Amino acid sequence: MFIYGNIGKNSEGHLTFAGLDTVDLAAEFGTPLYLLDEDLVRERCRIYLRAMREFFGEGSLPLFASKALSFTEIYRIVGSEGIGADVVSPGELYTALRAGFDPSLICFHGNNKTDADIAYAVRSKVGLIVSDCREELEALSAEAVRQGVRQKVLLRLSPGVDAHTHAKITTGLTDSKFGVPIETGAAGELCLYAAGLPGIELIGFHSHIGSQIADVSPFREEAIRLMDFVARMRKEGGPEVSVINFGGGLGVRYLPGDPAVDYRAALRDLAETVMSHGGGQTAKGIRFMVEPGRSIVAEAGMTLYTVGSFREIPGFTPYTSVDGGMADNPRYALYESPYTVYSANRASEACDTLTHLVGRCCESGDIIQKNVRLPRPKRGDTVAVAGTGAYNYSMASNYNRLTRPPVVILTDGRARLAVRGETFEDLVRNDI
Amino acid sequence: MFIYGNIGKNSEGHLTFAGLDTVDLAAEFGTPLYLLDEDLVRERCRIYLRAMREFFGEGSLPLFASKALSFTEIYRIVGSEGIGADVVSPGELYTALRAGFDPSLICFHGNNKTDADIAYAVRSKVGLIVSDCREELEALSAEAVRQGVRQKVLLRLSPGVDAHTHAKITTGLTDSKFGVPIETGAAGELCLYAAGLPGIELIGFHSHIGSQIADVSPFREEAIRLMDFVARMRKEGGPEVSVINFGGGLGVRYLPGDPAVDYRAALRDLAETVMSHGGGQTAKGIRFMVEPGRSIVAEAGMTLYTVGSFREIPGFTPYTSVDGGMADNPRYALYESPYTVYSANRASEACDTLTHLVGRCCESGDIIQKNVRLPRPKRGDTVAVAGTGAYNYSMASNYNRLTRPPVVILTDGRARLAVRGETFEDLVRNDI
Repeated sequence: MFIYGNIGKNSEGHLTFAGLDTVDLAAEFGTPLYLLDEDLVRERCRIYLRAMREFFGEGSLPLFASKALSFTEIYRIVGSEGIGADVVSPGELYTALRAGFDPSLICFHGNNKTDADIAYAVRSKVGLIVSDCREELEALSAEAVRQGVRQKVLLRLSPGVDAHTHAKITTGLTDSKFGVPIETGAAGELCLYAAGLPGIELIGFHSHIGSQIADVSPFREEAIRLMDFVARMRKEGGPEVSVINFGGGLGVRYLPGDPAVDYRAALRDLAETVMSHGGGQTAKGIRFMVEPGRSIVAEAGMTLYTVGSFREIPGFTPYTSVDGGMADNPRYALYESPYTVYSANRASEACDTLTHLVGRCCESGDIIQKNVRLPRPKRGDTVAVAGTGAYNYSMASNYNRLTRPPVVILTDGRARLAVRGETFEDLVRNDI
Repeated sequence: MFIYGNIGKNSEGHLTFAGLDTVDLAAEFGTPLYLLDEDLVRERCRIYLRAMREFFGEGSLPLFASKALSFTEIYRIVGSEGIGADVVSPGELYTALRAGFDPSLICFHGNNKTDADIAYAVRSKVGLIVSDCREELEALSAEAVRQGVRQKVLLRLSPGVDAHTHAKITTGLTDSKFGVPIETGAAGELCLYAAGLPGIELIGFHSHIGSQIADVSPFREEAIRLMDFVARMRKEGGPEVSVINFGGGLGVRYLPGDPAVDYRAALRDLAETVMSHGGGQTAKGIRFMVEPGRSIVAEAGMTLYTVGSFREIPGFTPYTSVDGGMADNPRYALYESPYTVYSANRASEACDTLTHLVGRCCESGDIIQKNVRLPRPKRGDTVAVAGTGAYNYSMASNYNRLTRPPVVILTDGRARLAVRGETFEDLVRNDI
């Protein structure tokens, strides 16, 4: 009946999430409120970890793509499951290290690393740094030499695969700010150049074709292009390849009609392609990585809001406004992202009213979701938006000078604060 | 030669802004860096204030729409010019009050005010609260009665005017989350209802038709509809109208080819329409307000970045990546907003290279501007994006766990910090 198995309703007609009454949670912590189902996060980590070990071999590993959701406690949770982390900035690295995350399991990404970022990542002894351009590799080489270390590096390749997803989250095309393209010959050149730089140990390749992909076939295509590149580099005297990182991108369900991706089956499919390529020779001696982000946390998240008004306009769909919006979830404003919406305090009532769910920002584009069905909304109702675990808290702003909501983690029938809600004092903390 | 008069270049071939060397500023404060030309902000405040007094009468006033740029010092600056402020949240109100802003000159907006917001605004003795729905007016009435005061209120009307601007920033249509529509008859009903509520003194009307509008004709149309409504309400026994607030929306130049709006002339045109309407009878006894935001601060802003890489891909436009992006300026990601870009450290060199200027976030949509012309970029170059004073700092996020840049104010050849740059410690301040 509900889109995810962690959503239900209780005898009071209240929506439940991870077994807890959402109306009680809204009363205890206030709204807007981010909730996170810890058990589902852990379950997804385990699915990925087991599948990687089983299908790709013991040393293979998923890394949590923490740009999807980054705060101290989430690194503790995924770290305790034994998976690695993909970080894209010094701020993510700082947060992971503060959580006690093992730096050797951290992969440092980003299409634009400053000299300070590079120095910090090397000093922090991150396991891998991923780069895709000459200027950055030269800066990294110089910094590693300065620090007297040899930094393990992956070269990010652009495989020229169209992931058939939203243009803003497609990343594997040749015309991209990410990766050095294989098809133009640039990847081969840069690989040989990087392998000769001091302070750098180029041990493999990374690529990422995009996000929210339900079909494994573009990943197979990506894998074939990477493995072909590995084979070619071996022939051409390139570096010894011991790590291949396929990035992330498996999708999640935002609407009830969305396909459910079987992550284990997808990894098995991918492994079959990889392991059989070149008669099984190419994969020898290689550890494989993937970088799930959204599929670890999206469905584990829910946002609660309080309704402020319900506006009927003859001839148009009525507007239901709530006490949050594009400041805590900019994804509709950015991509018209779909979400499934429920009434939290009247979960047993008929959803008889078609309405646009809109936020409180002074901007017409501040929409959470158009055309949702709810029991006729009224001021004071609690509304739940499902599937907000990825790219909501991490993309949140203080637009309209709104404070960012707290993040509350649910497990074993208990709720604990993971990130305190911001105060007005926080807003002006850096103001002179 | 440059898009705004406050941009130039010096004998070292460096770009100057408000008379200061931008390369020196980048060296002193680091990048990314928000700059704000205080003199231009003050000049725009004065243009609006003088024009409002001259054309609409002594009691008329512009209010700075502070959602465009909100931090403590900006309220001090505009407040010292004698104009009012439009705030849209308790966070903006808190910041304005912290700056010592006169609450009687503050107009509190927002399509979704919580009970807590209303209590805070009434307690703070804000001059005006603007509302547009029955539930909120009832909550406001109850709160004012509780506090033993009579709160002055404007009713926000939806005039049904198409501002012919971007759909996400058009706000005056009948199908909108903002305002109570005139054309359906709802505005008249709500006006009479609100006038009868205890604790509330309904003294006038507000509307806002959208943003970034270069042509005064939709404002004239808005004014006529509001004045007709005033005349009708007078006939029908509505409240005594003493304030009309036309909102904001006059545009700015982002590209050299954009039309330059003459704000004084636009207000004169608008005043002529208003003052002559109904044979001059309707406007009698009314103070008028407008709410410029973007046109006060946009052209006074500039953002400086450092280039990390320049990527050439045969057959495609090359990518120049910098150390900021959609986290400090999400406007291209949201609306494909245009901006004019300059080289800061090589301002005298030929702009021989067509390139996409992209940010450092791990997202393909993280673009600052496509197809800009620069001297062939290289790592370490400083790049300036002009016209970023509005909706950049105020919309900034910590996406990718990037720290928000400092805001530095320039005046009289001196630079002073107005907002300190965030630190990594700020990122985890609320993490448990």
